[in-house]
Amino acid sequence: MFTRSLLLRPQALRSPQSFRLPPTLAQLIQNAPADTAEATTVHGWIKSIRKQKNVAFAVITDGSSDCGLQAVLVKDKSKDSEDLMRRLTNGAAVRLTGQLVASPGQGQSHELVVESGTKDSIVILGDCDPQHYPIQKKLLSNEYLRDNLHLRARTSSIAAMLRLRHTLTRNINHFFDSQAFHLVHTPIITSSDAEGAGEAFRIAPFASSAHPAASSPSPSPTTMQEFFNRPAHLTVSHQLHLEALSTALNRVYTLSPCFRAEPSLTSRHLAEFWMLEAEWAFIHTGADVNQICDFVEALLRSVVTPLLAHPSPPSPSSDSTSTPHPDLQTLWAANPSRHALLQKAFLTDTHKWWPRLTYTQAIDELTKASSPSRSSSPSTTPVQFTYKPEWGKPLQSEHERWLAEELIGGPVFITDYPASLKPFYMRANDGPASGTEEKGETVACFDLLVPHVGELAGGSVREERWEVLHSKLVQAGMVPSSPSPSSSSSPSSSSLT
Amino acid sequence: MFTRSLLLRPQALRSPQSFRLPPTLAQLIQNAPADTAEATTVHGWIKSIRKQKNVAFAVITDGSSDCGLQAVLVKDKSKDSEDLMRRLTNGAAVRLTGQLVASPGQGQSHELVVESGTKDSIVILGDCDPQHYPIQKKLLSNEYLRDNLHLRARTSSIAAMLRLRHTLTRNINHFFDSQAFHLVHTPIITSSDAEGAGEAFRIAPFASSAHPAASSPSPSPTTMQEFFNRPAHLTVSHQLHLEALSTALNRVYTLSPCFRAEPSLTSRHLAEFWMLEAEWAFIHTGADVNQICDFVEALLRSVVTPLLAHPSPPSPSSDSTSTPHPDLQTLWAANPSRHALLQKAFLTDTHKWWPRLTYTQAIDELTKASSPSRSSSPSTTPVQFTYKPEWGKPLQSEHERWLAEELIGGPVFITDYPASLKPFYMRANDGPASGTEEKGETVACFDLLVPHVGELAGGSVREERWEVLHSKLVQAGMVPSSPSPSSSSSPSSSSLT
Repeated sequence: MFTRSLLLRPQALRSPQSFRLPPTLAQLIQNAPADTAEATTVHGWIKSIRKQKNVAFAVITDGSSDCGLQAVLVKDKSKDSEDLMRRLTNGAAVRLTGQLVASPGQGQSHELVVESGTKDSIVILGDCDPQHYPIQKKLLSNEYLRDNLHLRARTSSIAAMLRLRHTLTRNINHFFDSQAFHLVHTPIITSSDAEGAGEAFRIAPFASSAHPAASSPSPSPTTMQEFFNRPAHLTVSHQLHLEALSTALNRVYTLSPCFRAEPSLTSRHLAEFWMLEAEWAFIHTGADVNQICDFVEALLRSVVTPLLAHPSPPSPSSDSTSTPHPDLQTLWAANPSRHALLQKAFLTDTHKWWPRLTYTQAIDELTKASSPSRSSSPSTTPVQFTYKPEWGKPLQSEHERWLAEELIGGPVFITDYPASLKPFYMRANDGPASGTEEKGETVACFDLLVPHVGELAGGSVREERWEVLHSKLVQAGMVPSSPSPSSSSSPSSSSLT
Repeated sequence: MFTRSLLLRPQALRSPQSFRLPPTLAQLIQNAPADTAEATTVHGWIKSIRKQKNVAFAVITDGSSDCGLQAVLVKDKSKDSEDLMRRLTNGAAVRLTGQLVASPGQGQSHELVVESGTKDSIVILGDCDPQHYPIQKKLLSNEYLRDNLHLRARTSSIAAMLRLRHTLTRNINHFFDSQAFHLVHTPIITSSDAEGAGEAFRIAPFASSAHPAASSPSPSPTTMQEFFNRPAHLTVSHQLHLEALSTALNRVYTLSPCFRAEPSLTSRHLAEFWMLEAEWAFIHTGADVNQICDFVEALLRSVVTPLLAHPSPPSPSSDSTSTPHPDLQTLWAANPSRHALLQKAFLTDTHKWWPRLTYTQAIDELTKASSPSRSSSPSTTPVQFTYKPEWGKPLQSEHERWLAEELIGGPVFITDYPASLKPFYMRANDGPASGTEEKGETVACFDLLVPHVGELAGGSVREERWEVLHSKLVQAGMVPSSPSPSSSSSPSSSSLT
């Protein structure tokens, strides 16, 4: 019944285990031999082309790295070749076959020499009309690129950003793997509200008689129906689900989309963004918020440092020193000061931990710096803050900036904020914060402040004491005051978001 | 101005580079020395406990692996110890300190011997009232567990599934990394509809006068406002965005949530699910859909095979053969037949590719099997199908099941479906499908059918010829028939979703 010959695949030469896609341009250049007699075929888009009388120089890219491959296209006198040459424009997709040779030019190790007269040496896979092609060599504004979304990743800067995001994600996953965490995916559509972290988007109810996805402007209220039988929202944070999972799997994290319906047009407010969140149980004896700070710092260093100290490709003109990742250099071309700051924070004193201040100490420093009478160094001009630093009040952006950029000049953890400024589930400190006089109740939490960024991460030890949690819920009027025993155990745990 | 002493952290003994969280139970057991005089401290939840007169046996888990650690709790005569023992119940969170020794019992390499009288040898971090604790040792139904969502990951099967999902995700990322793909995140909230892949959820407009997230049942139509100034939906597929990105970065993939508002309660319809999608440009010369099948098969083998052939921990009683991952064994305990099937598909003939049939060949096989007169082996009973197999009609679930489960007995690729059954963007085959008579126009696509699963993956070569695409759009009445040149180039590309 079953015809075996149907299943033969003569073209299958490699085994499933050794499958590899053909090399990308980045791989080809990295592994290119010094010289070879074999013809090399490459695929890509023309990023730029400069035509001379007998030769044309084209930079070919396939998106695999920031540096393309220079192709030297040697012209032929034939009419066909002339036509072909005319069709070689910015943005055209091509297949080129030629000799990969060591480049005599600067800034590239290899170039591809293509004889245009040879059969199939130049194949145009997709023409590109330069009159209508929006991606030009000059610097294009972000606004202009937003109107050409489908092609904007063909610019060096957007492509560099996308590749960096990929690398950062990979480094994040590697770090959590090394610490025995499990990556989990928790629900996006939810009926729970995570501690009012922000306004939630609502899934629209639909008119039961109509098409569920129909966007009729005003369905009659009598036919409105919820898809899930009750109002559903997009999650603003995965924290609640992670907390539940960490009481079973212990170390869990997620890198997932979150949604906040905040009608605010600033660089710090996005309707949709991906957030890294983690929770783990069992902080060891004598634990405090510093253990979480250690974790966050180790995470960030393991993610960022390899990008700053990227091994350079071996070349005769340079030592094998490390330089920033080429994609970072592309992004920094317009902003070298950030480069210097990141290098200072990550590459100097790598054996030392980043500074940490309690909130109380931070308020003291801010107060000293802004009031001349209390300044420790009378020669210093007092700092002018719009908001007076005051214990019990939130740190304003100007305070956070001053702490990270002026006082420390790098990343700084601020710990042990007043309980009144933080949510109920953060663990109340037993005594006054270390090294300071008693100022009232504080909680075991941190914010990580970074120059030019502001708050990059935050987290806390979770309150695990049932009586403390219960009394807070009673205070908030969320449960009646008669106690009933908890049905599940929650050991002291910690998290960062 | 800046007080250096504030920044000293006497507890920071390790450097940021060498940071490690304490070992999990899984790591502790894996790296445990044969015998040690040092006391070992573990944290976890009591999964089960059996109390005898002078000793209690507790299985402790911290979620890091399927196998917990057995703790032998040696009782003390004191009143305190009695009280402590009473509080050791299923679900309680504990810290235990004792001697980790080679276990004389079956099924475990080590056990922890704890003397209950010693100070701090048993610390209860969280009590658990057995009367109210829903997770018991007996098998609990999925329905019951759904009513106890926050604790269901404490069951062996749910925890095993979550850990497996983590491992699968990691293996997927490793494979795409090895093939020089970039992981990208494309928008979830969108105004575009991906080829009508399913009904889309709509973001609710809000009443401009009210709170944006307020769920008032029937806001007056005059005040209704879109958050993004036009109707917004949740994405049903990331394909369109990936296609655009692949014309710049070439190899891109995403593992992201997708949403479909299909009011259908089957195991194949979820309102929210994570989907793996990939696109890449530049299929090499002579390319056909088989190159994509090669890729998909290599991907699945690299992701699944390590789970099936998991290196066993060394033990005196067994050779160092490989066995399925312990979490797979947990899930398979109730369903051994799937185990055998997966092993057959992945571990036998590992140098051979999975069978591939064109749609035309599949229809022939289905027809032969169901009609006695045309059957090649007269002794075989014809297969009874509810739907008659017919060229040009979709393959029904019963047909797909028969092909994968009966004809092949493992995964099978069905390629080159009729164009009428597939979306417009799949590449039209130039000639008749190989090895069969001409049956009409087919497209270079595939579905991967897997026993007990059905269609696990699908994909196609994308139509890159501008004239072909344009004439299809004209046919569909989506553009006027006068041609205008394309402004961007699209080389032949491929994808799987």
